[in-house]
Amino acid sequence: MTSTWEELAADKRNRINESIPEEWRIKDPPADDSVFEFPAKSGLISDQEISITESSATDLVKQLAQGKLKAVDVTIAFCKRAALAHQLVNCCLEFFPEMAIAQAKELDAYFEEHKKPVGPLHGLPISLKDQLRVKGLETSMGYVSWLGKYDTTESVLVTLLRKAGAIFYTKTKLVVWWELGGEGAMVGIRGGVIGVGTDIGGSIRVPSAFNFLYGIRPSHGRMPYAKMANSMEGQETVHSVVGPMAHSAADLRLFLTSVLSQEPWKYDSKVVPLPWRSTEEEVTKSKIQSGLNLGYYSCDGVVLPHPPILRGIEMVVSTLKKNGHTVAPWTPYKHNFGHDLINDIYAADGNADVFKDINASGEPSIPNIKDLLNPDKEKIDMNQLWGTHLKKWNYQSEYLDKWRELEEQQGKELDAIIAPITATAAIRHNQFRYYGYASVINLLDFTSVVVPVTFADKKLDAKKDDYQPLSELDATVQAEYDPEVYHGAPVAVQVIGRRLSEERTLAIAEEIGKLLGNSVTP
Amino acid sequence: MTSTWEELAADKRNRINESIPEEWRIKDPPADDSVFEFPAKSGLISDQEISITESSATDLVKQLAQGKLKAVDVTIAFCKRAALAHQLVNCCLEFFPEMAIAQAKELDAYFEEHKKPVGPLHGLPISLKDQLRVKGLETSMGYVSWLGKYDTTESVLVTLLRKAGAIFYTKTKLVVWWELGGEGAMVGIRGGVIGVGTDIGGSIRVPSAFNFLYGIRPSHGRMPYAKMANSMEGQETVHSVVGPMAHSAADLRLFLTSVLSQEPWKYDSKVVPLPWRSTEEEVTKSKIQSGLNLGYYSCDGVVLPHPPILRGIEMVVSTLKKNGHTVAPWTPYKHNFGHDLINDIYAADGNADVFKDINASGEPSIPNIKDLLNPDKEKIDMNQLWGTHLKKWNYQSEYLDKWRELEEQQGKELDAIIAPITATAAIRHNQFRYYGYASVINLLDFTSVVVPVTFADKKLDAKKDDYQPLSELDATVQAEYDPEVYHGAPVAVQVIGRRLSEERTLAIAEEIGKLLGNSVTP
Repeated sequence: MTSTWEELAADKRNRINESIPEEWRIKDPPADDSVFEFPAKSGLISDQEISITESSATDLVKQLAQGKLKAVDVTIAFCKRAALAHQLVNCCLEFFPEMAIAQAKELDAYFEEHKKPVGPLHGLPISLKDQLRVKGLETSMGYVSWLGKYDTTESVLVTLLRKAGAIFYTKTKLVVWWELGGEGAMVGIRGGVIGVGTDIGGSIRVPSAFNFLYGIRPSHGRMPYAKMANSMEGQETVHSVVGPMAHSAADLRLFLTSVLSQEPWKYDSKVVPLPWRSTEEEVTKSKIQSGLNLGYYSCDGVVLPHPPILRGIEMVVSTLKKNGHTVAPWTPYKHNFGHDLINDIYAADGNADVFKDINASGEPSIPNIKDLLNPDKEKIDMNQLWGTHLKKWNYQSEYLDKWRELEEQQGKELDAIIAPITATAAIRHNQFRYYGYASVINLLDFTSVVVPVTFADKKLDAKKDDYQPLSELDATVQAEYDPEVYHGAPVAVQVIGRRLSEERTLAIAEEIGKLLGNSVTP
Repeated sequence: MTSTWEELAADKRNRINESIPEEWRIKDPPADDSVFEFPAKSGLISDQEISITESSATDLVKQLAQGKLKAVDVTIAFCKRAALAHQLVNCCLEFFPEMAIAQAKELDAYFEEHKKPVGPLHGLPISLKDQLRVKGLETSMGYVSWLGKYDTTESVLVTLLRKAGAIFYTKTKLVVWWELGGEGAMVGIRGGVIGVGTDIGGSIRVPSAFNFLYGIRPSHGRMPYAKMANSMEGQETVHSVVGPMAHSAADLRLFLTSVLSQEPWKYDSKVVPLPWRSTEEEVTKSKIQSGLNLGYYSCDGVVLPHPPILRGIEMVVSTLKKNGHTVAPWTPYKHNFGHDLINDIYAADGNADVFKDINASGEPSIPNIKDLLNPDKEKIDMNQLWGTHLKKWNYQSEYLDKWRELEEQQGKELDAIIAPITATAAIRHNQFRYYGYASVINLLDFTSVVVPVTFADKKLDAKKDDYQPLSELDATVQAEYDPEVYHGAPVAVQVIGRRLSEERTLAIAEEIGKLLGNSVTP
C-alpha cells in the first residue's frame, strides 16, 4: 500500500531521531528562550568535547595534523553536539554518526601508519546542507516526494572535501523564506565548526548574519557545485553558489584553500582554474597597513534597515576610519531594478519545477512558499529569457562602470563596499519581507563576506518615529521594528568585492572582524 | 517611399564601393584562380606598403613604438591592401579609411609630443568582424533590416583596443555556413595583420584553417564581448566568444596580452579577472624543453576527415615525436552526442530571432541558411532548456573526468590534444556538411588554437577506395573528396586545452608551428 505524505514525513522524522543514540538524548529540555548555552551545560558532553567543539577549525586541523587530537574524538564531540542541536532546533535531515566514526577511524589508522595527515582537512567534521550528495544517504531537500532515493553518486565537493580529509556526519535543512535554515543553526550552536551552505539569494549570508557567523558567498565558478541536488536544476541565469559558514574568517579561508588545493576545475566544468591567490592576499595586507579605500551604504534606496542594522554599519565605518582607512559613501545603483530582475529570474519557469516536486507527494505548500513562489505565474519563453539575460549583463556591466568611474575619480582602487545584508537583525515569523540586500549581490555575482558586528540593543536602537518611508514595503518593514523584541539579536554587515575577489574580500572582512573584536562569538 | 530590400542592399554595396578612393581601384582584375599574389603585383601599392603589410604585428608595434614607422603610413598601407581585398573577394561590410587615417594622425601627434606610444598596440590597424560596434558606423551583420542604424555606443573590446592604441579601418562579413566569412579572407590576403572574429561553432577557427592562419578560440570569459551585436543576443547556454586571427601565434598573443592589460573584467561582467599568466607560459616552455605530454585523434567517431587532413595530423604527431614529445591517441568522448546537443542549443528559440531579422526587410533566406536553421523548428520551453543545461554540464564534466583519469593513469599532466578542426581542407560550395570538429569544443568551452600545417597534395593524398563509412553522412563527406579539386588547399589542426588555458595552449600551438616551419605563410 502506498504511504501518505504525512506517513512518509513522519517516518523520515523518526529515522532521524532514531539515528541519535540513547545516551545523547536530552532528558531535560532547556527552559530558556536561547538554546546557545545549553549544550555546554547539558551534562551530556565532556569538558574535552566542549573544548573541541568550541575550538576553531584552523586550530583543530593543526592539532589533528600533529597527532595531538584523534579524528575519532573530534568526530564524536561534534556528533554529540549536533545531536543536541537537532533535538533543540530540529535542524537535520540526515544524521549518520556511525558512518562518520568509521571514516574517522580510517583516518586515524592512516595517520598512525603514515605519520602524516591525508590532506589539509584531515579529521575535521564538516556539516553539509542537504543538497550535497553522499553515497548511501538520502537527499530530500525537504521534499517528501524525494524520500526513499539513496544516492549512488557523490557531489564533486563531497569527493574533494573527502580527499582533503573531511568527515561527514550530518546534512541539514534548507533555507526557504529564511525561517527554516538548518546549517546556520547547526554551526551557530557549534554542532559544526564549518558548515556548507548554498546561496542564490542570500541563503549562506542571511543565516550567517542571523547566527553571528562569518559566511562567504564566493562568486560563481570558484567552488564546485557539480552533482549537487537542487530545485530548478539547470537554471543558469543566476547560479546558486556553494560556500562555507564558520565562526571566523580564518576558518572560511581554510575551507576555500583546502577545496582549491584539490583542483576542482579538473572535476567540474563550471569552476574557473584559479588556485588560491596568495599574492592577492599579500597586496591586501599591505593595503591594510597603508589604508584601505572602501565604500559603504546604509540604505539601498528600497528599504531602510532597522536601527540596529544602521548602527552596525556606523560602527564598522567609524571603526575603520579610526584605524586609518578611507570609507566614503557608495551610491547603490538601481537596486530596485536588480531585485525585481532577479525575482523574475527565479520564477522563469512559472515555478513549475518546485511545485512539481512539492505536489508529487500530495503535500500542500506552506503559505510562505506560495507567497514566495506564485504557482500561477506564467513561464517566460526563450526569447524573453534571452532578453532577461541581456538586461542582467547590461546591469552588471553598468554596475562595474560605476565602480570603475569612482576609482578613476579617486585615483585609486575601491577595495570593497560595506553594506547591510538584511534589513532586520534576525527574523520574526512572517516578517522577513525584503531580501534585496542579499539578492542584488547574487545578480551581480560579486563576492560577499558576512561579518558579525554586534547585537541589537533596545537602549541604543530607538524606533524612528519621524521616518518618511520610500514605499509601502519600506513603511511596513520599518513599522515592524520593535526594540524590545529585537533586543539581543545579532547584527552583521556584508563586505562586497568584485566578481571572483575571494582572497581580497575575505582579507578585508577578516580585518574588520579583528578591529571589531569579533573573531569569536562573545 | 520605402525602399525594397534589393534597393537597400544595392545602396549598401555602393556605399562600400564608394568608400574606396579612385586611385585604389583595380583596373585589371587578376585572371588566376588564386588572388593571394595579386596585391603585391597590382602596381597599386608601393614596395614599402608591401613590406608593411607583410610584416608581423609584433614587429610593426615594435617599430611604431620606436618611432621607426608612422601610424599613418602603416594605416594607409593596410587600407590600400584591404581595398584591393574587398574588390577581389567582397569581404567588407564597412570600410572607412578616412576615419582610420585621422585616428593615425592623432596617434602620430601623441607620439611626437610624448615620445612614447599610447599603449601596446600603438598605431596598429586591426580589422573587425561586423559584430563590433564603432561609434558612427553601421553594424548590419549582413541583415538588410539592420541597415541605416548608426552606432552611438561602442563595444567594450573596441574601447579597450582603442585605449591600447589600435586603429580601425574596416568591418568584415560574417561567417555563415563557412562559405561567407570576410575576416579570414581579409587577413589571409594581408589586408589586415590581425583580424577579430567570433566563434560559437567554429567561426574563428574554421576560416583560420581555410586561410592558412593561426586563430584562437579563447574560452568564454577571457575576452570582452559586451556591447557587441549578435543574433540570438542574450543566449547564454553556449557563449559565442571573440578572438583574433593572424599569421603567427606571437601575433595572437600580442592581441590577447594587449586586451588583458586593459583589465577588461572591470568593464564586462562576463570577463574573468585573469591577467595574462606569464608563469603558465614559463611552465609550458620548460615542459617543451623536457617533453610535452599530448593526446591526438584523427577521427572523432562521427565523420572521418579527408586524406589531406589525416596527413596533417600525422605530420604534426610525427614531428612532435621526433622532437622528443609524447603523443598518444585520445579517445574522443561522445562527440556525436555533443554535436547533436549543441545543434539543439543553437535552435533553442526555434530560430525565431534570426528569421525575425531576415524577414523584417522582406529579403528571402538563402538556401544554406534554411538548411542550417530550420524556420519550422519549435521553441523549447524553460524546463526543457534547464534539462539541456544539465546535459551540457554533465557532458563537460564527464569529458574532464576522462582527461583527469588519463592523467592519473599516465602519472602526468595531459598538456593538450591535437585534432582536426574540419573534415575537409578548405570548402567547396555546398559541401561543408559537418562542423562537429569545431562545435564540440565550443560545447566544452575548451581553449583551442588553430595551427596551419600544410597543403593538400594530389600526389600524397589519394582517395580511400576501401573506406567503410560510419554513417550516411560520413559516406557522403568521404565520397566528396577529390584530390584534383582539393589540391593546394590549406590543411590545419587545432590544439585543444582545458577551459581558460590560453597561455599554455597558445605556447604549445606556437611550438608546433615552429617545428613545422609554419610561423609564416609559405
